[in-house]
Amino acid sequence: MNQMIEDIEVRAREELFININPIQAAGRLTPEAMKAVIAYGDGYSTCDWCGKPFRLDKISRPPISKFHIELAKFVGMDQARVVPGARRGFQAVVSTLVEKGDSVIVSSLAHYTEFLTVEDARGIVKEVPLNRENIITGENTAQKIEKVTRDTGKLPKLIIIDHFDYLLGNEHDIHGVARVARDYGIPFLANCAYSMGVMPLNGKEIGADFLVGSGHKSFASPAPSGVVATTNEWAEKVFRTTQMVGDVTKRKFGVKEVEMMGCTLMGANLIAMMASFPKIRERVKHWDDEVKKINYFINEFNKIEGNKVISEMPRKHTLTKVDTSGSFDKIARTHKRRGFFLSDELKKRRIVGEFAGATRQWKLNTYGLTWDQTKYLAQAFQEIAKKYGIKVA
Amino acid sequence: MNQMIEDIEVRAREELFININPIQAAGRLTPEAMKAVIAYGDGYSTCDWCGKPFRLDKISRPPISKFHIELAKFVGMDQARVVPGARRGFQAVVSTLVEKGDSVIVSSLAHYTEFLTVEDARGIVKEVPLNRENIITGENTAQKIEKVTRDTGKLPKLIIIDHFDYLLGNEHDIHGVARVARDYGIPFLANCAYSMGVMPLNGKEIGADFLVGSGHKSFASPAPSGVVATTNEWAEKVFRTTQMVGDVTKRKFGVKEVEMMGCTLMGANLIAMMASFPKIRERVKHWDDEVKKINYFINEFNKIEGNKVISEMPRKHTLTKVDTSGSFDKIARTHKRRGFFLSDELKKRRIVGEFAGATRQWKLNTYGLTWDQTKYLAQAFQEIAKKYGIKVA
Repeated sequence: MNQMIEDIEVRAREELFININPIQAAGRLTPEAMKAVIAYGDGYSTCDWCGKPFRLDKISRPPISKFHIELAKFVGMDQARVVPGARRGFQAVVSTLVEKGDSVIVSSLAHYTEFLTVEDARGIVKEVPLNRENIITGENTAQKIEKVTRDTGKLPKLIIIDHFDYLLGNEHDIHGVARVARDYGIPFLANCAYSMGVMPLNGKEIGADFLVGSGHKSFASPAPSGVVATTNEWAEKVFRTTQMVGDVTKRKFGVKEVEMMGCTLMGANLIAMMASFPKIRERVKHWDDEVKKINYFINEFNKIEGNKVISEMPRKHTLTKVDTSGSFDKIARTHKRRGFFLSDELKKRRIVGEFAGATRQWKLNTYGLTWDQTKYLAQAFQEIAKKYGIKVA
Repeated sequence: MNQMIEDIEVRAREELFININPIQAAGRLTPEAMKAVIAYGDGYSTCDWCGKPFRLDKISRPPISKFHIELAKFVGMDQARVVPGARRGFQAVVSTLVEKGDSVIVSSLAHYTEFLTVEDARGIVKEVPLNRENIITGENTAQKIEKVTRDTGKLPKLIIIDHFDYLLGNEHDIHGVARVARDYGIPFLANCAYSMGVMPLNGKEIGADFLVGSGHKSFASPAPSGVVATTNEWAEKVFRTTQMVGDVTKRKFGVKEVEMMGCTLMGANLIAMMASFPKIRERVKHWDDEVKKINYFINEFNKIEGNKVISEMPRKHTLTKVDTSGSFDKIARTHKRRGFFLSDELKKRRIVGEFAGATRQWKLNTYGLTWDQTKYLAQAFQEIAKKYGIKVA
């Protein structure tokens, strides 16, 4: 282990290895973001030229204000704010709309942070069941709304559905959900943590009231960072400014937005998002090639006897859950390193990011690999299979 | 302007200038933190070795878990968590304790983020008046509690008082407030955004139930970053784990803490805090020297005829509000550059961080300057005064 400072080791996984970690792929920095992080690392680095009205998203040097306008346009919404992680975007919306005992419709594959934000607001999650293909549909969402309304005597206050879920990377019918949401007059938040920043996305086309994205998941930015975008109509509520008045001093901080806690994502993380933004705008145009690569990989991966894919097929996302119970797990059962034999073999081939020791169901992500790396990755798995006597078609 | 990426300029204020910006001084990175930021810049960089129970503060490689234990000890509390900024620490505590209509006691010099977190929880702030020396005392706090209880028919739910306030940098009697809080059985949060990381601090000695600190303000860390620390008793409540169960899937995410939104401060910001920590532990021992430097500076500064200090004297903190209405502002009134003449003169002398254009009341911070820099800074102001015919004693 190479120590950097005391017991903190140097991290060079992205430089030295092919990293197939399911959550890390689209959050690795662009070179531009790395430069930004170095230049703007110091605490309040974004505040050098902060002037009236003294709010982060209004700062023009560096061009934070312009970035906010372009970011909203980029995701097809009227307004956008940066937040410390997608979860803080959920929190802002949920905290605005949900009161004690209110129901919030979520997916049966909802990310845990959606549960937490609802719990924090003292609301209750109500899950939409998956269809047979493990997809959330508009129809199932409508049925769930009906059921919740019958059971509780009132409409749910909010619908949160993931565009692509964290577990299978399946695409859910957010267009259909948006239509249903409108029919019932319930606001709809599309959780785009796995889509905003890697593929084209247009909130108004979808018909969503809120889009939430993640900087560290899909926007080539440091953690924590994220985006919450909305329409002008909802911005008035979720981005409402403070009304509180000090009873002794009569102080007011009128321009500060309550749910944003005033200034949100100061510092290096924001400037890194801004620095990555030109590349992000470019890379979303090549999402189809990323989808081709994962499908190529899965096709090769499935030539290994016993390998299966749990995610929907063909793949629409690079995040994919696979099942190797019928192949690598058979080896693991008798290997002295157990499931770690697969990690060892991968690491020898300069591949990391699998869940160490797991040989049954596990996730991988090929986002951002070149075609050469994708082919090398597929070959590596086939070579390992052959080495242990597993048939490869 | 030196462009780095498109319209983002290189930031090198801390490298090229003496920076007296009131909020930036103690948040500039240590070299160790800068190294950490470079190595751990990529999105989910802290998650490489995340295993059971899958929570940030439990990760042992890099040694995040150990850091949490040492951090709690460092501030004299039982438990600590990192959060994206002090405001998110206030939010966690307020969201736990405060319900609609509840009162929260704050200082008449409370930071605006305290207002926002109370407003977000639908509570109401009640300000403690300052005494004649612009200090919050235990006695005034007790009187305010009495008044609020009389007026509203119930005890306030929480007391939040700033150790050093953001406006004057005055030290408030948090020991006295803590005693009063205990007498009334009301939990007490000491906002240590301007003290944790620059001076010795012991929560249990103070008698506080919560300490909140800021990474980008006083812990040589990138924004957003912060700390919330508490006792075991309160940790059960504020760091409570999720109880929400999915109605369809029966999913639970038991180890995730509701108010922390699960994992809090992943990535470079946390590793930078960890990397700065050894230097932080060392630098708090030399706070007395920092206090000597600001008092030396103010003594020299006050030799300029018409200069005044609005903060308490002698200074107990490096953050200081000064009044130059009787000196530099007189020049500004007829100068063609108005108040910017002072900024121009300072910049010529490689000094930045004053509020550009302000020549009446403004803030500065000498934290972290060497003795040579402190003397140079004092001389610079005297030279400028002399140049414009202001007497210097």
